[in-house]
Amino acid sequence: MLTYHDICRAATVLAKVTHVTPIMTSRQLDHASGATVFLKCENFQRVGSFKFRGAYHAVATLSEEERRRPVFTLSSGNHAQGLALACRLHGAAAHIVMPLPINQMKREAVVGYGATVHEAIDRAEAERLLRRLLEEQEGLLVHPFDDERVMAGQGTIMLELSQQVSDVQIVLAPVGGGGLLSGLAVAAHALNPHIGIYACEPFGALDAMPSVQQNRIVPMANPQTIAEGLRATVGCRTLPILREHLTGFFVVQETEILSAMRFAYERLKLVIEPSSAVALAPLLRREPALVGARVAVILTGGNVDLTTYWDMLRQRIIARN
Amino acid sequence: MLTYHDICRAATVLAKVTHVTPIMTSRQLDHASGATVFLKCENFQRVGSFKFRGAYHAVATLSEEERRRPVFTLSSGNHAQGLALACRLHGAAAHIVMPLPINQMKREAVVGYGATVHEAIDRAEAERLLRRLLEEQEGLLVHPFDDERVMAGQGTIMLELSQQVSDVQIVLAPVGGGGLLSGLAVAAHALNPHIGIYACEPFGALDAMPSVQQNRIVPMANPQTIAEGLRATVGCRTLPILREHLTGFFVVQETEILSAMRFAYERLKLVIEPSSAVALAPLLRREPALVGARVAVILTGGNVDLTTYWDMLRQRIIARN
Repeated sequence: MLTYHDICRAATVLAKVTHVTPIMTSRQLDHASGATVFLKCENFQRVGSFKFRGAYHAVATLSEEERRRPVFTLSSGNHAQGLALACRLHGAAAHIVMPLPINQMKREAVVGYGATVHEAIDRAEAERLLRRLLEEQEGLLVHPFDDERVMAGQGTIMLELSQQVSDVQIVLAPVGGGGLLSGLAVAAHALNPHIGIYACEPFGALDAMPSVQQNRIVPMANPQTIAEGLRATVGCRTLPILREHLTGFFVVQETEILSAMRFAYERLKLVIEPSSAVALAPLLRREPALVGARVAVILTGGNVDLTTYWDMLRQRIIARN
Repeated sequence: MLTYHDICRAATVLAKVTHVTPIMTSRQLDHASGATVFLKCENFQRVGSFKFRGAYHAVATLSEEERRRPVFTLSSGNHAQGLALACRLHGAAAHIVMPLPINQMKREAVVGYGATVHEAIDRAEAERLLRRLLEEQEGLLVHPFDDERVMAGQGTIMLELSQQVSDVQIVLAPVGGGGLLSGLAVAAHALNPHIGIYACEPFGALDAMPSVQQNRIVPMANPQTIAEGLRATVGCRTLPILREHLTGFFVVQETEILSAMRFAYERLKLVIEPSSAVALAPLLRREPALVGARVAVILTGGNVDLTTYWDMLRQRIIARN
């Protein structure tokens, strides 16, 4: 099981490779939430997301022999980009299995890092394809979250945070598969057993909360949320850690995700993706448990497709001239 | 004429009131530009723009007697917000004359700070209205840029920058009325006479360049640019400073402004307004004078209306459910 020692070791591996992302504060956010809020800006991390930490750590801790084998994962999002860059930096071959529909911006980023993309018509087919390719090519799997090397990498966020901000009382982070929260929680409680750790989950992809409550993986058949990074279900390695460490859950509606994104853009001047907005939303509705507390929020990433907005803006300008 | 001493004094007035805004760097931007770039993020300044510095300094240096008189300006943008907040913090009454069309978001922000808004049908009418109100109410004018107290406040950016980044060789900033560049240039050249100071100006509002070249104010009848903050013409106090200090101009097209905004959003995860993008654009086209240099860019503000984008996004989600 993941230990604080694993996370400290990961931090030494990641030093000089990952960015020490800044902490941002905002009077307006403090006023809106009634809390003292510290935003840990992983949207400024390499590849635009915290996922680079875990992916890099996993690849860096492969043996020389292992690194000569192709590295696989199943992801259409930030883990894919993180793993693609991590492999490029280590001279390893990355193979990404992506289920349709595929975000073209993310696909291009992955290909830009030199990875090979394998498309599959849906999630079930993608899993079959992954198993077949792993077998045929004697590949190595770096799972997006259910992997202790990945969890340890994500946990380094908490080590940084503890050096940047004193006396954090509560940490908010979004939950998808639970890799980020597992790393955060183990690190946080090693440093201070009294820190409250809350998982923020979209109502449209509510599987972590029932899984933790029932102590079994309760997948959701067809999750519906714009927070595409949070559609995954917790894994057998993350579930026991979440059960042991989580203080509670905040469930967030889709309209709250949009409002929180908008708040970040307009007031904070930060581009964040919907998954990050899920962790900001409980503050904006003034959750009673947060009022008066020193709250750290993990802004997990900033990879959001603004093309549609820009096309419209461009058209308006052309029409005016 | 504005001196380095004025700017240092302004810095002591602004200490503990303005934010020391962060410097951001980006591998992707360095790669795209061929330069080593330092982004001075005034989009994170209070009211979302550097304009708060000059406005606050102007109001703070009024005498007790003066501060009991109403304070006026003509602005529909960031200076209006900055002055409104500065007056509120000093218990002074702010009156903002705004020419139509008025950005409702900025109007609401100004009213939210307790200022009185006076609408005028166009720029010429706004100037007449301002003169009449100043006379009738024995008001004080805080001009958006042609005022040494304002220029001194803006110049404090350079003092901060010099403490945050060593060996800056070139500074890029957008030019509208020239208040920001005047303050920056006087401070920069006092610290290091060899720093290159470039004004970045939209082709659609190209008045500063001919004004500096011809040593007279050459207004543009009907400036056309999305960089609404840069439609103003240089003033009689800023023109001689610009003539003395500017190394040169970079002229930027509208499509480049949009591309630079998009680069900031998608790659840097920063919300910047079009005026800021004007100063980023020369880097993205790899201006030869910038390649290989240590370049600081003033990202002047982040007040941009994203409503249209969000309305569209919201509609798409509702349509899907």
